[in-house]
Amino acid sequence: MAQVYERAALIGLGLIASSMSHAMRRAGLAGEIVGYARSEDTRQIARDINLCDRVCDTAAEAVKDADLVVLCVPVGAMEAVAREIGPALKPGATVSDVGSVKTAVVEAVAPHLPANVHFVPAHPLAGTEHSGPRSGFAELFDDRYCIIVPVEDSDRAAVDRLTDLWRGMGARTEEMDAEHHDLVLAVTSHTPHLIAYTMVGVADDLRRVTDSEVIKYSAAGFRDFTRIAASDPVMWRDVFLNNKEATLEILGRFTEELFALQRAIRQGDGDHLHDYFTRTRAIRRGIIEAGQDTDAPDFGRSKPRKGDITGG
Amino acid sequence: MAQVYERAALIGLGLIASSMSHAMRRAGLAGEIVGYARSEDTRQIARDINLCDRVCDTAAEAVKDADLVVLCVPVGAMEAVAREIGPALKPGATVSDVGSVKTAVVEAVAPHLPANVHFVPAHPLAGTEHSGPRSGFAELFDDRYCIIVPVEDSDRAAVDRLTDLWRGMGARTEEMDAEHHDLVLAVTSHTPHLIAYTMVGVADDLRRVTDSEVIKYSAAGFRDFTRIAASDPVMWRDVFLNNKEATLEILGRFTEELFALQRAIRQGDGDHLHDYFTRTRAIRRGIIEAGQDTDAPDFGRSKPRKGDITGG
Repeated sequence: MAQVYERAALIGLGLIASSMSHAMRRAGLAGEIVGYARSEDTRQIARDINLCDRVCDTAAEAVKDADLVVLCVPVGAMEAVAREIGPALKPGATVSDVGSVKTAVVEAVAPHLPANVHFVPAHPLAGTEHSGPRSGFAELFDDRYCIIVPVEDSDRAAVDRLTDLWRGMGARTEEMDAEHHDLVLAVTSHTPHLIAYTMVGVADDLRRVTDSEVIKYSAAGFRDFTRIAASDPVMWRDVFLNNKEATLEILGRFTEELFALQRAIRQGDGDHLHDYFTRTRAIRRGIIEAGQDTDAPDFGRSKPRKGDITGG
Repeated sequence: MAQVYERAALIGLGLIASSMSHAMRRAGLAGEIVGYARSEDTRQIARDINLCDRVCDTAAEAVKDADLVVLCVPVGAMEAVAREIGPALKPGATVSDVGSVKTAVVEAVAPHLPANVHFVPAHPLAGTEHSGPRSGFAELFDDRYCIIVPVEDSDRAAVDRLTDLWRGMGARTEEMDAEHHDLVLAVTSHTPHLIAYTMVGVADDLRRVTDSEVIKYSAAGFRDFTRIAASDPVMWRDVFLNNKEATLEILGRFTEELFALQRAIRQGDGDHLHDYFTRTRAIRRGIIEAGQDTDAPDFGRSKPRKGDITGG
């Protein structure tokens, strides 16, 4: 893979930015990678682990002469960053982001960018429950989708170039408009996260079942919920505040369906339950066939390997 | 590990029974393992893969002279099986089960057992989303909990002997009464499963988001839900019909909490969301420290290994 950008600037140095840096280096996609994080601690860690070629102390300094600037901060911080870097951007540069919602990010960022830069929002559908500059790894995006969300006046060449970058980092890409992106993600990510957070909160609250019981017997299904519910609280707060309409719509449908199943349980309607549970099996098969998960038995996860238990 | 039972009979030959057979053989825990399944096909597969030492064509024949009989059928089928085997049980034998609910199983099974056998219900908290006699493996119970649920007149020696068996198969054991078991499982397993089934059903129903979009973008959180929602429909129908009260109670608490979060989203109350999401992180850490999961990044699961995609 050839170099796609001469200088790429990463604003915010968490899981996604640090994984991008590793992935760009793996394929030689950027001549120089410059980084900035608001926290002095984060900047120091990034320097210590040599995460970028250069770590700057201000966002404006980091974006200077960059061909690509990627905003990797929580959705609620996008507007302030855009306002700060706007005047410092190089004419002809591409500005992108990795935010989990798109309509709100476009509204927050676009007004602050000069007319002579290209704005191409994007969202890589990849992550782990870990955060911070040490959590990144080059393989995070391999075979995962990155959704590119061109805005009305996005330059085609700029869109294609960003697409090349994401493919070079191992991702598959798709284009989508911002509103549809936000609805799809409300279904596949935002509502499931909210539900997982809720269920874990319920377990924590229930005094008749102790925390230690919840923890010991988590392998029975709850465990995957706790993993999801360990994700970064600031990032997720901002997702829900900024994808309000789509999330509330899907939540409404979810509670409707849940009430129907609850009623079936109360009334002892086994056929309703059986039919519903049979239908949901087909989607699982589709996901395996699409290469987005494996068919290997997973609930059991057999025994945790001793070396993995770091307590971290 | 020495032999614990001379002859063990497994009634029902799905994931749990087939894993028990492999695990008992691994440690030499039973002199002879006899099996029975209602379906002729299942019995034939069990014979073909040499799952048991002997596969019988009736349940009554399978339990003859067995020191241990384990009912490994869906909860809704327990009563009929108990009625059938009752007269054929050997005096002094232990009858156990592996059902996911306990109060209903005790009520269904106990009346059909003669006074001269020991009834010791149990529930191994282990499973995968696969089912059938081919899905078992010896490691399924390793480091997982098996909850032993002695009934009022359970013989102490019989309870200890069954405990030895489960420990020999790799499990950790705990004793609990039936009612408390059902509440704990409603929290850690039954309600999470119902929620996962519901969310997958909602995604499947939403016409504005295509199935192929749901499948392609599932890595964003939804994927773990689909895995849970691929579990056996008959088993889960029976769980909900037979753990009605505890499941409805936890569901009620779940919807209360969900509505509070929904309201926070609608009102833009970021502090409420952030506080809630911060609290749920602690439980995750407890689970890792208890050795019930690893800290390795999992959402990414990096790339599916080619060999794993069997389409099966």
